[in-house]
Amino acid sequence: MKNKQWVLNNRPSGVPNIEEDFKINIVDTKSLDYGDVLLETQFLSLDPYMRGRMNAGPSYSDPVQIGAVMEGEVVAKVIETKSKIFNVGDMVTAKSGWQQYSTLSEKSLSKINQDKNLPITYSLGVLGMPGRTAYLGFLEVCKPKPGETIVVSAASGAVGSIVGQIAKIMGCKVIGIAGSNEKVKYCTEKLNFDLCLNYKTQDIDKELGLLGENFVNMYFDNVGGNISDAVLNHISTFSRIAVCGQIANYNAKVPPQGPRVARTLLTKQSTMQGFIVFNFEHIYVEAMEAISNWIKSGEIIYKEDVYKGFDSIPSTFMKLFEGENFGKLIVDVR
Amino acid sequence: MKNKQWVLNNRPSGVPNIEEDFKINIVDTKSLDYGDVLLETQFLSLDPYMRGRMNAGPSYSDPVQIGAVMEGEVVAKVIETKSKIFNVGDMVTAKSGWQQYSTLSEKSLSKINQDKNLPITYSLGVLGMPGRTAYLGFLEVCKPKPGETIVVSAASGAVGSIVGQIAKIMGCKVIGIAGSNEKVKYCTEKLNFDLCLNYKTQDIDKELGLLGENFVNMYFDNVGGNISDAVLNHISTFSRIAVCGQIANYNAKVPPQGPRVARTLLTKQSTMQGFIVFNFEHIYVEAMEAISNWIKSGEIIYKEDVYKGFDSIPSTFMKLFEGENFGKLIVDVR
Repeated sequence: MKNKQWVLNNRPSGVPNIEEDFKINIVDTKSLDYGDVLLETQFLSLDPYMRGRMNAGPSYSDPVQIGAVMEGEVVAKVIETKSKIFNVGDMVTAKSGWQQYSTLSEKSLSKINQDKNLPITYSLGVLGMPGRTAYLGFLEVCKPKPGETIVVSAASGAVGSIVGQIAKIMGCKVIGIAGSNEKVKYCTEKLNFDLCLNYKTQDIDKELGLLGENFVNMYFDNVGGNISDAVLNHISTFSRIAVCGQIANYNAKVPPQGPRVARTLLTKQSTMQGFIVFNFEHIYVEAMEAISNWIKSGEIIYKEDVYKGFDSIPSTFMKLFEGENFGKLIVDVR
Repeated sequence: MKNKQWVLNNRPSGVPNIEEDFKINIVDTKSLDYGDVLLETQFLSLDPYMRGRMNAGPSYSDPVQIGAVMEGEVVAKVIETKSKIFNVGDMVTAKSGWQQYSTLSEKSLSKINQDKNLPITYSLGVLGMPGRTAYLGFLEVCKPKPGETIVVSAASGAVGSIVGQIAKIMGCKVIGIAGSNEKVKYCTEKLNFDLCLNYKTQDIDKELGLLGENFVNMYFDNVGGNISDAVLNHISTFSRIAVCGQIANYNAKVPPQGPRVARTLLTKQSTMQGFIVFNFEHIYVEAMEAISNWIKSGEIIYKEDVYKGFDSIPSTFMKLFEGENFGKLIVDVR
């Protein structure tokens, strides 16, 4: 069977050039060994981290090779099987990338077992890795207490929007930081955050300073860099800083420098913890049940941006960098 | 009664000038209110933090005012009392500073209740604040497991030497970092550390790199700055960094800059926690009993440098900055 793929044709310099940096490839699907399944991609998740994978430089994951299929998580349907676990017609999530078909070992798949009344694409967002990251990072790392204040950066994003809403459910005060007035409005009006600051038009350090002294009990850090420096100036004694993402520094060519945090942590008796969601696999089921219930009760609102068409994946990807996109970006490739 | 005091006469610039920066003052002892005691100083602890208190700049404690008695913790004897808690002859620790007598409220004193067979000066070191800091910072913040590797900076110091020895007792591998060959030798030969590096003659980053990859499970940080940067390059997944002191940066005039640590903490899923010993008051008794027992069994070795004479306190203090002093610095002022 013919399989259409988007492969990396060039390493982009700065903003990707979708004509030159990506290329469609047509190949035959691979045959199945024992334990393999053949998947037909239904929906593809597009995420900012993918830009980092296009660079040659070292990161915590290997770069995509020139000529290789672009990475990405998908919802896919099993259309052929040599597995005892997966049957034809099963819906799974898989890291099969920007391609229409893929042959994968059963070991690398997750069967989708979310509530049938919710869109299946949710398993790439609020009921998938980003949702789990929000739930587990917030509860296990921030260890919230009712009445405490949390600051969350990338507040309208797939992770930040869920963190802030769970914090509200837990009785916390939530201050978001986002990058457009539309996002700010979404956070305060739709998601019910107490406040949201626009880092492009406001001085975060100054604005937080106007709210009180050392009042930030938790910081859920999705970005790093200057925004985090500003938030750290306002942490309370015994605060908890969950380091979830550092997108501000992912493209740095030399180790990024900034104000030293150790003395702040010392004088504030505070904790900064980096976490990766895969370490909490034992409580995924709990996390997904809780979030499902909150979605059904209307306590968690989740926004998707679904685009159609395999051929337009690169141009859809570019929406992530055009500033006004928000909501989880999904491509329907059926 | 006449009371002799050492007061700060000038704010030193760089290395204190003991002729110009300090001055002896003779005053009358203050009369006692209800709840007060009159103390006669027996032993004074001299510590590096005192240099910071001589500066005008902001710190986490207020500076000593010009003309005020220099700060410091002492062992003292109660010689007059209007307290129902303290009797004449009781031995206490108090933060009464560089003076022969002091009138203090009973609320600011701690009765010394250490093992009678150990020198009473130990209550200013291994059986006092530095010992508690070592025990509680190591056990409560580093959370050691047998077989793990810890790096401890200022390894021969009052805190570091105890951290390393407790780590050996707990079955950990201990790598010290110290500032002279004599200190290095003390750590490996007397304290039984597995290794000790000399940061003045060795490249810490390179030396740790020769020992393996990402093998440092715990870092007990007494200094900050470049030494910490080097250690952080070698931490393991799930490592714990206890921030106890940041002496490398205490004299900085602007917020010190350095490599950002958030991404390291993220990719290594590691935790950096600042702590101050006063938060663990509820387990002081446990800490002091454990350390007493280890001293008596010979599992913990503790070194004191005791000098005699009230008038020579400033010149004795200067030994802290002359490089080769080690062991807890104590002045016998009786």
